[in-house]
Amino acid sequence: MSRKWLIKNGTFAVLDQERPVIQGYMLVEGDTITYIGEERPEGVEGAESFDGKGLLFLPGLINTHGHAAMSLLRGYGDDMVLQTWLEEKMWPMEAKFTAEDVRAGTALSVLEMLKGGTTTFLDMYDHMDEVAKVAQESGIRAVLMRGAIGLCPPEVQDQKLNEAIAFARNWQGQADGRITTMLSPHAPYTCPPEFIQKFVQAAHDLDLPMHTHMSETRAEVEQNVKDYGVRPVQHLLNLGMFSRPTLLAHAVHLTDEELDILAAHQVTVSHNPGSNLKLASGVARVPEMLKKGIVVSLGTDGPASNNNLDMLEEVRLAALIHKGVSGDPTAVPALEALKMGTEYGARSVFLPETGKLAAGMKADFIALNTEQAHFVPKTDYVSHAVYSAGSGDVEHVWVNGKQIVKNRACLTLDEERIRYEAQEAFDGLLTR
Amino acid sequence: MSRKWLIKNGTFAVLDQERPVIQGYMLVEGDTITYIGEERPEGVEGAESFDGKGLLFLPGLINTHGHAAMSLLRGYGDDMVLQTWLEEKMWPMEAKFTAEDVRAGTALSVLEMLKGGTTTFLDMYDHMDEVAKVAQESGIRAVLMRGAIGLCPPEVQDQKLNEAIAFARNWQGQADGRITTMLSPHAPYTCPPEFIQKFVQAAHDLDLPMHTHMSETRAEVEQNVKDYGVRPVQHLLNLGMFSRPTLLAHAVHLTDEELDILAAHQVTVSHNPGSNLKLASGVARVPEMLKKGIVVSLGTDGPASNNNLDMLEEVRLAALIHKGVSGDPTAVPALEALKMGTEYGARSVFLPETGKLAAGMKADFIALNTEQAHFVPKTDYVSHAVYSAGSGDVEHVWVNGKQIVKNRACLTLDEERIRYEAQEAFDGLLTR
Repeated sequence: MSRKWLIKNGTFAVLDQERPVIQGYMLVEGDTITYIGEERPEGVEGAESFDGKGLLFLPGLINTHGHAAMSLLRGYGDDMVLQTWLEEKMWPMEAKFTAEDVRAGTALSVLEMLKGGTTTFLDMYDHMDEVAKVAQESGIRAVLMRGAIGLCPPEVQDQKLNEAIAFARNWQGQADGRITTMLSPHAPYTCPPEFIQKFVQAAHDLDLPMHTHMSETRAEVEQNVKDYGVRPVQHLLNLGMFSRPTLLAHAVHLTDEELDILAAHQVTVSHNPGSNLKLASGVARVPEMLKKGIVVSLGTDGPASNNNLDMLEEVRLAALIHKGVSGDPTAVPALEALKMGTEYGARSVFLPETGKLAAGMKADFIALNTEQAHFVPKTDYVSHAVYSAGSGDVEHVWVNGKQIVKNRACLTLDEERIRYEAQEAFDGLLTR
Repeated sequence: MSRKWLIKNGTFAVLDQERPVIQGYMLVEGDTITYIGEERPEGVEGAESFDGKGLLFLPGLINTHGHAAMSLLRGYGDDMVLQTWLEEKMWPMEAKFTAEDVRAGTALSVLEMLKGGTTTFLDMYDHMDEVAKVAQESGIRAVLMRGAIGLCPPEVQDQKLNEAIAFARNWQGQADGRITTMLSPHAPYTCPPEFIQKFVQAAHDLDLPMHTHMSETRAEVEQNVKDYGVRPVQHLLNLGMFSRPTLLAHAVHLTDEELDILAAHQVTVSHNPGSNLKLASGVARVPEMLKKGIVVSLGTDGPASNNNLDMLEEVRLAALIHKGVSGDPTAVPALEALKMGTEYGARSVFLPETGKLAAGMKADFIALNTEQAHFVPKTDYVSHAVYSAGSGDVEHVWVNGKQIVKNRACLTLDEERIRYEAQEAFDGLLTR
């Protein structure tokens, strides 16, 4: 029999337009929310009880684009021109990453994400078995894929494709269903068309969604037009990618016509405001995307270009920058920004059973400590979560019905050891 | 004899270009830092000792523009067009503010600021005696002024001017020198020219600096040209304001010529990135200001338009948005952003003895807890402070040599009572 427990006296961000926040009760049975409402539910005599006083419950945050292992390179090169940063800093170090480095860096990132209220993360990287094992042990929900760069000889391409397929097949649905997989050619500018087509075919064969970087910089869009005669959206459409459910990362430089193509094919977007600002890539056309009905979610990108994995910060950035840049203070209101970090995140990684506090949804949720000055007065808790809160306010985290963070400490991971091993891994990279 | 104590094993952000961070010792005697360096200083036999292991010491953050009492209106109207927000939400409520409301709101804000690592704040508001008393009791350093709107009959103007003068005279140098004062006509668009000139005269008489809002929105600049035939910088220059040391808040919409005038007169600027984005005012030309040698600092503005008082967030925003908007990833590097929040903050509010960890400076500093995932690996602690840290990382805060926050709790203020009284004050405003 699965565990049954009832949260009382809670403030719950259900995020409905008419009534975004309710006071009351939430019942959890096993890995599922089975009731949420103002009235005490019936038939809960045997349930354990949890006092929600002073806590604001939110759906767990969903980080829809990243490369967790890159936390090993946090602060190793900032404020540089993109190409120099990549060629002189990132790529030489990443070339040295072993499976053990990926494990150490991913564990560091998962620890940070969990403590900051992220309950699901997407990861596109190499040595993905290590990433999956960390996800399995830590209790986080994960959407994982081997990201493949195709600028290599055909036999290496084939090897990467086969790795990507094997990984996707082996791990899909593992860890009590917490791990799902996708197929992911790295980007149009790093993958020849035929290589991308092979991934599309594999996605059809395995019935999995796809993910790729697209139109992060103006230069890569221009290169695409030069190489293939079309902009990246048309290019990927031509290659058949949008015949699969697809999530695109960045999508900064888009024309109206490209937005229409994405909307027509229900392609979802991972907006990465922190990374796009820091790397000076530009500001994505998020208000226009939302108007066209495109599902836009939020990602941190890799920790080396952010430099943290704080999804509450991405939510706030999404709410702030589009106002400032467009001149419209009603652009991306607080409620919409918070949905981008939760409900739209779930939809964009094709996990519609997560991302919302409602009966029937997976019990992935977090509690912020509102007994702090910046949550006073009690005017609008959605506004407070978006414009006032910080990741330091995350008090508790549950994933799949299980408590993972309690009183700001992670129950599933050895925090001190993880920090130590990540430092060791970085020191090793410097000396190898 | 003043207390003498030595921090050992510390990591100190001295923020020198060549060597921004050092490991070692810092000696504090009374209200002053008397030594900082890698070697253990001489003659410290009698000093108490403090273990700095695992802590990153930064100069205290300096919030150079705000209206603390407006925390009572946090979340009371967001994502609205500026004029509607002001006319329907802010002004009707502010008109009801009593001295007690200002005390309650200011205490709430000072509590939030101290816990978030702000050691000095500037405040421009009404009922300023209450603000000064909160500053006095809490132990924070404060730069205070009665902000005067001149859209009223001459006798009311005179009364406000006299209040501003009396306040500035009474409180200058109070609270062991922690309180200094300025003179502050609210803005060119809310003050007739002669009213501003009277403030300039008073500033000369009392030998005090001046502060005002300027060029926050495009509309107010256009109105200035229409009313007075010149843009706001020339207007204030004509009125004699820049004959006094002057700090301008916002300064979003400036021409090259205006930047040159500000640089020539050593006018300082409080950049308010969070507020400017949220109210969709635009993005100030900070990289150009810094290039011209203008001292640019950071402010939160009032909590109703931010909606928190998190200066680490303003530092990060300053480092991020100018890259994204300019397309230059080297714009406002981390070190420069952190100086804007500390050293340049001190200079912009004319307190050059604060804002830096160096011998001879006032002992206003904070310690971040670096034993957390997002501070790993130990690559670049300036980068980590700017791009990774959050206000939840602030472990200890000292002002004028005295510890004010210890293990994330405020030693000088009754946190629970302050939150309760602020809520009561807000509830009262709703029913009056």
